[in-house]
Amino acid sequence: MIGGSMKIIIVGLGLIGGGIAKALKKSTAHEIMGIDTDESTLEMAADTGAIDGIASAEDIAEADLIYLCVYPQACLSFMKENLYSIKQSCIITDCCGIKREIVSGIKDLQKERSFVFIPAHPMAGKEKNGFAESDPAIFQGASYIIATEEESAAAETLSELAKKMGFGRIVRTTPEKHDRIIAFTSQLPHVLACAYVLSPQSRLHSGFSAGSYRDVSRVADINAELWTDLFLDNADDLLAEIDTLIENLSKIRKDIAEPDREKVFGFLSKAAEIKRAIDN
Amino acid sequence: MIGGSMKIIIVGLGLIGGGIAKALKKSTAHEIMGIDTDESTLEMAADTGAIDGIASAEDIAEADLIYLCVYPQACLSFMKENLYSIKQSCIITDCCGIKREIVSGIKDLQKERSFVFIPAHPMAGKEKNGFAESDPAIFQGASYIIATEEESAAAETLSELAKKMGFGRIVRTTPEKHDRIIAFTSQLPHVLACAYVLSPQSRLHSGFSAGSYRDVSRVADINAELWTDLFLDNADDLLAEIDTLIENLSKIRKDIAEPDREKVFGFLSKAAEIKRAIDN
Repeated sequence: MIGGSMKIIIVGLGLIGGGIAKALKKSTAHEIMGIDTDESTLEMAADTGAIDGIASAEDIAEADLIYLCVYPQACLSFMKENLYSIKQSCIITDCCGIKREIVSGIKDLQKERSFVFIPAHPMAGKEKNGFAESDPAIFQGASYIIATEEESAAAETLSELAKKMGFGRIVRTTPEKHDRIIAFTSQLPHVLACAYVLSPQSRLHSGFSAGSYRDVSRVADINAELWTDLFLDNADDLLAEIDTLIENLSKIRKDIAEPDREKVFGFLSKAAEIKRAIDN
Repeated sequence: MIGGSMKIIIVGLGLIGGGIAKALKKSTAHEIMGIDTDESTLEMAADTGAIDGIASAEDIAEADLIYLCVYPQACLSFMKENLYSIKQSCIITDCCGIKREIVSGIKDLQKERSFVFIPAHPMAGKEKNGFAESDPAIFQGASYIIATEEESAAAETLSELAKKMGFGRIVRTTPEKHDRIIAFTSQLPHVLACAYVLSPQSRLHSGFSAGSYRDVSRVADINAELWTDLFLDNADDLLAEIDTLIENLSKIRKDIAEPDREKVFGFLSKAAEIKRAIDN
């Protein structure tokens, strides 16, 4: 199918959906149609050439591939509404940051009518949201995670398109492993950034901060609605990571309070060793 | 004095001392002499023109300005050894990351023989150490903190030199305020980065990480010897910040565990609001 021309629909033209539309328009000859609840976003996407047009009910029925680029509940609502109009050969994929929840919701719908769903997580983002901020450059070299280890033509098609969009690496995993690791690599840093800036000292930082302040606090200007969902959808894994972090913080807190110079030195040396090992 | 030519000695030609030597050589006509316990560092500094020569006992006696760019205890040892040979008009300054400790040690020495000491903290660094890594570019736009609010010709001289080195801002404060705020802006992010990478998940991050992982973990490849000293020298302020952070982490942990969607949303919204307010 990747050889011929596909009709691709992007549902939700925000930061990620807008970026996918622009990237596919730029690097493929497929027909890219858009759907969004916001009229002005749709107009902007059509006017700037990010999409070939606004998807009609007919387009949905004819679509070969649909990228769901909205919140988990909105993904499921869209699928419910269009369950019987979508072609059974159509590939459905999503961009949700947590995979177990969406996969479970989709599985319930597949009991009603079978369709091809490939859970995916394009690991890219920035601190601002919306179509106007979307830019395929954020995909450059990033990981495109496909949260199923099952081989299929559909997964192959998505991998090839992700490479064309500029993703540097296609990672195959399961929803469970994905959510466990993401709790550490992505959710915990966001929790941390927010907890960090809540210190009363944060208002006094001007003139006293350098790179380490900037880096830890960067993602604190968070999309609260999106991340509340992501945190609650992955509560078990995230709570385990928060607990591990509090445990480690409490450990070095105790060593500093003693004070036990050797233990503090040991803690920092071990961290430095791990950081060098994992990044090389 | 800033008009004429000064004899300036840099004690310790590591990342900071090496950077100061190179910056002063590049942007002033002063005579820059170096001292280091490592012979090969001294040779490299002389060979690359970062210093005009290796400081002799005579140079120390003639020095108009001395930058102490070594660990706090080594700063005090150098001053003890040279207390009676240094000119009383010579300006002594340091680069220690914590100010109360060094200021208190210097005050004890000043009871024995008075000399001009201006505590300073050039807020710049990177993950690697040593002369070979030193680069005046890290000073560009950074804060040069002078930890005394008292006006003096010596402080004025140091401010003018800092501007010539490329620092973007001269901040005047007290050792107490400095240490309190630095505990939050610099020490806590380093504690955090180390506690963060100690999670068992960190070894699995490859392919699952994006900007937020990279940013939080960046400084975990820490100079354990230097930071053990800095943490212990500022234990009271740092412990207060660690406690505040653990408190905030425990709060959102509880809200996620409930789960209380409204409280999680409120926590994140408040953090986003603060982050926007403090960075604008």
